[in-house]
Amino acid sequence: MKTLLIICDGMADRPIPALGYKTPLEIADTPNMDWLAKRGISGIMDTIAPGTTPGSDTAHLALLGYDPYQTYTGRGPFEAAGAGIDLKPGDIAFRVNYATVDKNLVVTDRRAGRIQETKALAEAIQNIKLKGAEFIFRSTVGHRATLVLRGKGLSHEVSDSDPHEEGKKPLKVVPLLQSEEGAVPAYPIIAGGVRKYVMRRRWAAKTAKLLNEFSQRAYEVLKKHPVNIERAKNGLPPANYLLIRGGGVVPHLVPFYQRFRIKGACVAAAALVKGVCKLAGMTVVDVPGATGGVNTDLNAKAKAALQQLQDHDLVLLHVKGSDEASHDGNIKAKIEIIERVDSIINQFIDSFDFIAVTADHTTSISVKNHTADPVPVVISGPGVRTDDVRTFSERAAAKGGLGRIRGKYLLPIIIDLMGKSSKFGA
Amino acid sequence: MKTLLIICDGMADRPIPALGYKTPLEIADTPNMDWLAKRGISGIMDTIAPGTTPGSDTAHLALLGYDPYQTYTGRGPFEAAGAGIDLKPGDIAFRVNYATVDKNLVVTDRRAGRIQETKALAEAIQNIKLKGAEFIFRSTVGHRATLVLRGKGLSHEVSDSDPHEEGKKPLKVVPLLQSEEGAVPAYPIIAGGVRKYVMRRRWAAKTAKLLNEFSQRAYEVLKKHPVNIERAKNGLPPANYLLIRGGGVVPHLVPFYQRFRIKGACVAAAALVKGVCKLAGMTVVDVPGATGGVNTDLNAKAKAALQQLQDHDLVLLHVKGSDEASHDGNIKAKIEIIERVDSIINQFIDSFDFIAVTADHTTSISVKNHTADPVPVVISGPGVRTDDVRTFSERAAAKGGLGRIRGKYLLPIIIDLMGKSSKFGA
Repeated sequence: MKTLLIICDGMADRPIPALGYKTPLEIADTPNMDWLAKRGISGIMDTIAPGTTPGSDTAHLALLGYDPYQTYTGRGPFEAAGAGIDLKPGDIAFRVNYATVDKNLVVTDRRAGRIQETKALAEAIQNIKLKGAEFIFRSTVGHRATLVLRGKGLSHEVSDSDPHEEGKKPLKVVPLLQSEEGAVPAYPIIAGGVRKYVMRRRWAAKTAKLLNEFSQRAYEVLKKHPVNIERAKNGLPPANYLLIRGGGVVPHLVPFYQRFRIKGACVAAAALVKGVCKLAGMTVVDVPGATGGVNTDLNAKAKAALQQLQDHDLVLLHVKGSDEASHDGNIKAKIEIIERVDSIINQFIDSFDFIAVTADHTTSISVKNHTADPVPVVISGPGVRTDDVRTFSERAAAKGGLGRIRGKYLLPIIIDLMGKSSKFGA
Repeated sequence: MKTLLIICDGMADRPIPALGYKTPLEIADTPNMDWLAKRGISGIMDTIAPGTTPGSDTAHLALLGYDPYQTYTGRGPFEAAGAGIDLKPGDIAFRVNYATVDKNLVVTDRRAGRIQETKALAEAIQNIKLKGAEFIFRSTVGHRATLVLRGKGLSHEVSDSDPHEEGKKPLKVVPLLQSEEGAVPAYPIIAGGVRKYVMRRRWAAKTAKLLNEFSQRAYEVLKKHPVNIERAKNGLPPANYLLIRGGGVVPHLVPFYQRFRIKGACVAAAALVKGVCKLAGMTVVDVPGATGGVNTDLNAKAKAALQQLQDHDLVLLHVKGSDEASHDGNIKAKIEIIERVDSIINQFIDSFDFIAVTADHTTSISVKNHTADPVPVVISGPGVRTDDVRTFSERAAAKGGLGRIRGKYLLPIIIDLMGKSSKFGA
């Protein structure tokens, strides 16, 4: 039994006045998704919980069957895993921006002029050694990088150094566990007891101190680096400071195969989604031409999905463009990418037993951001209790046989249909 | 207010090609269940959780309003309770098979030739006394028995001695809490802290040791028992070994009356279901002619349900045959038992205020096993918000007014309709 799970990032939407109060998915011409709806079972799904607006990271954790409240501590670990760093449970990972500060250490550009080539800078930074933790640093795309701290007695419960706006100085990293008066809070507030709280505070204080030292050392390395001297000559803002944010401890995710006894592969361009899948122990494929934008090479991704089918039982095919178009408020681009995704589906129909289509969250064209509205989902394949739904859309799916489910149950439902679930009880 | 809750074990199914992609319940002629649907409120129900395949024991715990994740540790306690052993919370209970081993202690028959008469053997075993725990042993049906350990510092976290296949030696019982190297696992794995973990391991080690001693003593008693010497003479495999499995600690279930202020009775043949109801403090009735199979005497069970109506507010009527037919892949037998259950319903209509019909789980004819698909449920009686559903089936119920609910909420919903719920808050 083979399953294809297509996740169109942010595909779901709200009714839009300019579309006569229809959604892009309702307007888009999607004969293949409609075909799946006719032969499958539909429903609506809160990837996290009703009224909770999902991020792409928490949504994908849920869609892989993990409880995001149990496993998510911050975005850092998933970015770092997506960047190809080989993480261990307990590592503390952060997102990093290359930024520009002036002589007075005021941030003048949070993205260092959207610098593209940072390899030499990253190599210089990787040479920084500090006692108390191993530092692993890697540039990712453009001005972005990730930083991982590995060692004993570390914590993700520290603040960001990123002031999140220009014209301000980078912030000092502080432990997040300190009450305003520095006192230990009253007992019932402390999960795990006073002793554990004291330990957590100590670890957070140590981590904050290390990050502040690291920031200072990185600044010293970067400000006199040849790349930045060259940039200054050319009138470009130097990438002379690292802004740190989004810290999280790398969770122990029970690997996909161990939980479900099937092999899973991920075909995605977005680093965050690749990171979640990688931490879940899935095979993560790099597809040339997959950009994560509306112009992505969907045929290349389809081909990669079909290739992974050979060695895997479940292939997750993620398309980011629908989310990008929504954030840009671009109705036309959103409809187009939905229709393009639809057009690649028919080549899968003979190769997979089950095909499921859904989104990780609603991204509202009007709001230009994620919203908490549930997403439509359809599962087509042998044994499903087909329903009366004839098209694939937010409102058609709401009348489907699945009813309203949570994101974390989607994969168990599919695994059960594949005949791979194990009984709870006797 | 009186309620009848009819649970047809494994009645729900998936669409079956041989039935034109209908389910047995959709095909069966069920005028009485349809009558309930027309006058009631329907819905679909995940007895445990979406995508989780229920056992009959966990499902019935949920259907009695208990959270199975909080109360279920193994099948043993429910089998033992069903066998009539008067259990106390904290007792450790196991399922036992009378088996045959050869001179080299290799299991040659896991069911000792499906031996039927084991009373004398059980009496001999009951005489075994070991220091450290009280042993309660009882034969149940055929080659089956149950074993209960009572005492301080015992644990259900031990392995089975049953190798689960013939041609192998019985396994040594070991504590399940030991990591492969015998080391205490890393901190985050230990729920409740190291100290509790160490205690749990100690109890499990003690219990494992006792069970290994008991197995040895039982073997010595059984191999020279007159019953077995007689069997050997007749060329029958001797019941000379006890294979132990399915250990669980007897949970403290808040009794039915205490929780709901109503009296509950259970009419069932299956020992497991009787056991769950007994541990929940319900009256459990033995019905002559109730076999737990497709040939069960449903009229006798109906009569028993009507009798229990006199002294009880809620009667649970359980029919096992629909599950048996499904496990056998017998479509015809499944449709027949569903129709037979339907035919007994009309005699209840004037006697009970509320009648609810559901299943404990889906047992797929195609898969020949339990699956995680939700089950249909209907509740008929005064005050329910009737809906448009006109027939009782998996897919008709999916459009009902109850929506998609969890098994553990069914009884509270019924109790509330009966006017017996208590307010949470003011």
